[in-house]
Amino acid sequence: MTAAHENFAQWCSDELARVEAALNQWIVADAPANLGEPMRYAVLDGGKRLRPLLVLAAAQSAGPLGVPQAEAALRAGCAVELIHAYSLVHDDMPCMDNDVLRRGKPTVHVQFGEAQALLAGDALQALAFELLVPEGRDIPDVMQARLCRQLALAAGYNGMAGGQAIDLASVGKSLTQPQLQQMHKLKTGALLQSSVEMGATCAGITGAALAALRQYGAALGLAFQVIDDVLDVVADSATLGKTAGKDADNDKPTYVSLMGLDAARAYANDLLAEAQLALAGSGLAQPRALAALADMVVRRSH
Amino acid sequence: MTAAHENFAQWCSDELARVEAALNQWIVADAPANLGEPMRYAVLDGGKRLRPLLVLAAAQSAGPLGVPQAEAALRAGCAVELIHAYSLVHDDMPCMDNDVLRRGKPTVHVQFGEAQALLAGDALQALAFELLVPEGRDIPDVMQARLCRQLALAAGYNGMAGGQAIDLASVGKSLTQPQLQQMHKLKTGALLQSSVEMGATCAGITGAALAALRQYGAALGLAFQVIDDVLDVVADSATLGKTAGKDADNDKPTYVSLMGLDAARAYANDLLAEAQLALAGSGLAQPRALAALADMVVRRSH
Repeated sequence: MTAAHENFAQWCSDELARVEAALNQWIVADAPANLGEPMRYAVLDGGKRLRPLLVLAAAQSAGPLGVPQAEAALRAGCAVELIHAYSLVHDDMPCMDNDVLRRGKPTVHVQFGEAQALLAGDALQALAFELLVPEGRDIPDVMQARLCRQLALAAGYNGMAGGQAIDLASVGKSLTQPQLQQMHKLKTGALLQSSVEMGATCAGITGAALAALRQYGAALGLAFQVIDDVLDVVADSATLGKTAGKDADNDKPTYVSLMGLDAARAYANDLLAEAQLALAGSGLAQPRALAALADMVVRRSH
Repeated sequence: MTAAHENFAQWCSDELARVEAALNQWIVADAPANLGEPMRYAVLDGGKRLRPLLVLAAAQSAGPLGVPQAEAALRAGCAVELIHAYSLVHDDMPCMDNDVLRRGKPTVHVQFGEAQALLAGDALQALAFELLVPEGRDIPDVMQARLCRQLALAAGYNGMAGGQAIDLASVGKSLTQPQLQQMHKLKTGALLQSSVEMGATCAGITGAALAALRQYGAALGLAFQVIDDVLDVVADSATLGKTAGKDADNDKPTYVSLMGLDAARAYANDLLAEAQLALAGSGLAQPRALAALADMVVRRSH
């Protein structure tokens, strides 16, 4: 392992510990009628935390952060993770994908019942926005408002929820590559890209560096989904921590069904190169964690 | 009808027209995969718009508003209505109340399917926050951030979603009046009270006037639920626009089951008096619309 990778491993481990501690603190256990239980179950002790890491890496890419900016980035990272987690809870429900396994555990509705899963997801979405607008934490109002704007756009009808609606409508249909791309750009890409942009907001990054981060985020978001489709075919459920092969079972169009396995893998590598190129030309002082995260996304096994 | 009531009727009619036009504009029809259809169906052409009217009445209670403040109030009113509408969509789903009739029409999941109802609700919640943080509309950042904070708290685990969790857990159980009160304070009261407080935020109302508005909002929120329970017993489905008698059918505790019909009615009148008293002592220049709204809430027939 190179020194750069050792540093990245250490960075990841440090940041993940901060994210887990923050999530553990902010998703309170004592919500009314035990609603905290399914909320915590849905978020804690699982997940790669890719989105929080992207927020933090982007926020730190221009150099060291002040204390309020660092807190804003931690809050933004956790907020994005809550949106991601709630979408999985709702997506797993019987009326959607009807999945029983997630991160190697029974899904929330299996564990707590459908009504609790529905409410826990709803409450997680509200909590995501709550995290972005704390009172008395010295985070500038303009930053709080912009973070809310970025998250709302990424989560809503023209972002993640819209992408899921396309996904739902596409079952059993054959999509062209541009249509498939549009679906994933919204369903998964919007939140991943928004993670990078929210990090940039916390650091006050603008201009050419912001444009480069956007390009990086778009390529990364797409690569993530291509690899997801590849893994759905080649990995087993135990490695994935969720039901493997379900896209084919559900007759859903994927990059693999559209391009074939080898071409899908090659496409993911092209997107990785595009993301790295954007970083290389960004002029950012500390792009290394972002570069390593892109690498990780494409080379992951689950 | 007195002159004051004629004025109020005119005020209502003018403000409702603005709210309907704004909702119609902001819930776009061209969302991906027709997701706009269930979203619009869930919100447009129905509902009393009590929450937007409360936001607007509170915002105008200290006197005329500037243009950005008036726009903030309209956005806040619509945002609260979207949260209310999404909660009804999810609440009506088979895993919750399993209701087929709402505002005299088939519920969203009956009309569009459960998956679309779930997604439309999720997207409406995101859109609510999006409305509060528009770019380039001259609404101060501090106001945008505070509105998001108020809405997130009212909608989340310690507000509406938490109240629904208590509701869910209470089916078939007998609650004491304090427990029932706590449930409704969260389930319905939090969003009604937050409507009043968000209006105050748009107008920059603070101090004793804000405290009076909070007291008004708390009493109004509670009165609303007491009357809801009364109407569930005495009105028929056609008048209500939703299934009557469902609380008793579902073996849910209500103010009527707890206190009896006459005592519940008397309690609602006490709460109305409390709300009016708070307004009378508020020192606000224009409390009349708020007073008339409280009146309307308690004297309504559906």
